[in-house]
Amino acid sequence: MGGVRKIAVLGSTGSIGRQALDVIRALPDESKVIALTANKNLKLLERQLLEFQPKMFCSSIKPDVSYGGQFLPAEEIASHPDVDFVIVATVGKAGLSPTLAALRAGKTVALATKEVLVMAGEIIVHEASIHHAQILPIDSEHSAIWQCLQGEESKPQTLLLTASGGPFYHYSRTQLAEVTPEQALQHPVWKMGKKVTIDSATLMNKGLEVIEAHWLFSFPFDSIEILIHPQSIIHSMVEFTDGSLKAQLSWPDMRLPIQYALSYPKRWSNPGLPRLDWSKINSLDFEPADYDRFPCLKLAVEAGKSGGTYPAVLCAAGIVQETLEQHRSSSRPSLEEILAADKWARECATRLHLGSSAKQERRDNPATKR
Amino acid sequence: MGGVRKIAVLGSTGSIGRQALDVIRALPDESKVIALTANKNLKLLERQLLEFQPKMFCSSIKPDVSYGGQFLPAEEIASHPDVDFVIVATVGKAGLSPTLAALRAGKTVALATKEVLVMAGEIIVHEASIHHAQILPIDSEHSAIWQCLQGEESKPQTLLLTASGGPFYHYSRTQLAEVTPEQALQHPVWKMGKKVTIDSATLMNKGLEVIEAHWLFSFPFDSIEILIHPQSIIHSMVEFTDGSLKAQLSWPDMRLPIQYALSYPKRWSNPGLPRLDWSKINSLDFEPADYDRFPCLKLAVEAGKSGGTYPAVLCAAGIVQETLEQHRSSSRPSLEEILAADKWARECATRLHLGSSAKQERRDNPATKR
Repeated sequence: MGGVRKIAVLGSTGSIGRQALDVIRALPDESKVIALTANKNLKLLERQLLEFQPKMFCSSIKPDVSYGGQFLPAEEIASHPDVDFVIVATVGKAGLSPTLAALRAGKTVALATKEVLVMAGEIIVHEASIHHAQILPIDSEHSAIWQCLQGEESKPQTLLLTASGGPFYHYSRTQLAEVTPEQALQHPVWKMGKKVTIDSATLMNKGLEVIEAHWLFSFPFDSIEILIHPQSIIHSMVEFTDGSLKAQLSWPDMRLPIQYALSYPKRWSNPGLPRLDWSKINSLDFEPADYDRFPCLKLAVEAGKSGGTYPAVLCAAGIVQETLEQHRSSSRPSLEEILAADKWARECATRLHLGSSAKQERRDNPATKR
Repeated sequence: MGGVRKIAVLGSTGSIGRQALDVIRALPDESKVIALTANKNLKLLERQLLEFQPKMFCSSIKPDVSYGGQFLPAEEIASHPDVDFVIVATVGKAGLSPTLAALRAGKTVALATKEVLVMAGEIIVHEASIHHAQILPIDSEHSAIWQCLQGEESKPQTLLLTASGGPFYHYSRTQLAEVTPEQALQHPVWKMGKKVTIDSATLMNKGLEVIEAHWLFSFPFDSIEILIHPQSIIHSMVEFTDGSLKAQLSWPDMRLPIQYALSYPKRWSNPGLPRLDWSKINSLDFEPADYDRFPCLKLAVEAGKSGGTYPAVLCAAGIVQETLEQHRSSSRPSLEEILAADKWARECATRLHLGSSAKQERRDNPATKR
């Protein structure tokens, strides 16, 4: 087997999990699936089990599939001696405990689930360090920064995370100048409310990425900047102390950062991956991120700076600002305290949400019976 | 002295030489001038000698300056035991012989004079290899590629040299479509003829850079591409086998690549160097290079591919195509054969030029007496 990666894919039926299997399928001489885990999509998991025949698998309900593989808990799979490379692509906090198990067993962990670092960055980084385990990023922005840092001996000055900018940035400058989040939130149409929730989520996501970058590269929050770049060709940049920058570019396709994590420190040729066609790229556009106009982005970075259990609350809460305001953080929390904060935030946000949606309904529909 | 670079600047009164001294002046703890050489600008050389007090100096005429330094031939300076870092920033072929002397003495050579590699790439690379001497690029494009290759273990697929594009690329697409080099050359105004000469020179320069990249990175000509990028912020890019690219960016300022060669593999903080301001960069534009429309670019790359003494003839000849057609190349030429080809090309081009400018004059001015 030699240099073949022996891989566990946690969350194999999700978008990143499926793309990871695409990469592995294209590179049978370089990579082998040892284990797959999923949550509830048993139909797809069964197909994947029959195709890849992994030694181990796991899901929330045991599927009715007969082949030679063994059903084991995700933590046991992530730390199993037959596995050397764990791709964590589960949804949210489900990745936390298997990631810790993998790191404690000294495995290389390729991380797509950003909540793992956002919720428990300090614990994760500490465990990786004492067990000499590597954490490799799969998020395209963090993979870009990681690629740009290769071979650099001096600490960089600034990390520039690029962001497509979401739907607000597609407005003309004139339109943009007239739209405030407050106006958008007060829009009388419920559908608009949902859209704003999505917009907020998009920029919240960028805020979570700032926290992720802070932990992955042990980099201070004040030196991580966000740059709006609608084409998503430059996936992020690093600025060095001499004023020089490096950028990583590619067609936006998650299989590239997934494969880079697998091939690192080499690169593998894969004809299935798309290539940039410069005859079709006329320009790459940029705009500084406006923190004032996007309060969720600001809140996420503030929660990251405050640390403790605030980031866990940030991940769990739908109604962010009020939930964060009501939260009392533990400093240097244990994994149990982090999961408790997650539970508290979900309950608190639901409570706040029920209150606000009752209000919203009254506003939306004056005829609603009270 | 420890890690302080002990530097000889060859061509210290030229543009690159002066900027190299700017960098050294700003970093007295990291770098020290041991020697300076110039051609005929004795006034500036004298000022530089009095400021930096180098142990050795050289110029085509001995200047009337009294300080403790020793007047020595450039070759002796470049290979002197007190020097460990040689910046070659002379004009054209004057850099050849001192560069060889430096490499044979195992010095690190930072190369700004592209003719050295264009004329004698095979000899230069061979001598560097057998004497374990490093050649570091100072041209911004080659420095960019070199920076992007740091830490990469797999051979890249394509080198993308960026080019500002010269004056033709500032025309609108409609105008461009209507302009051919033939038309431009037949333009009846002599000044236009001069302008075309300059335009050709600019794109010729990019052709020389392709040859330089070929030797610096031992990369096949067919995998070196040119991309027009008018803003000159991305200084060049490297495409890897997985479809990922890296780019190096900075404000266009030659002090950056000069300093990077000095600081490599580290980077030094230098408050005197400019920084990119993303609030002022709205877009980076790109356009594929059109080899058909710019025959000099094509000729340069063809001369590079043909090898032998063709590249030396390319460097020396003003009237490129006809001179190359009349030349019979030596394969694997010695330094003497290269310098003989240079001399032949200058004579041949002068002969052709006298012929064509006589014709040109007759065309420009029908009243010229024959």
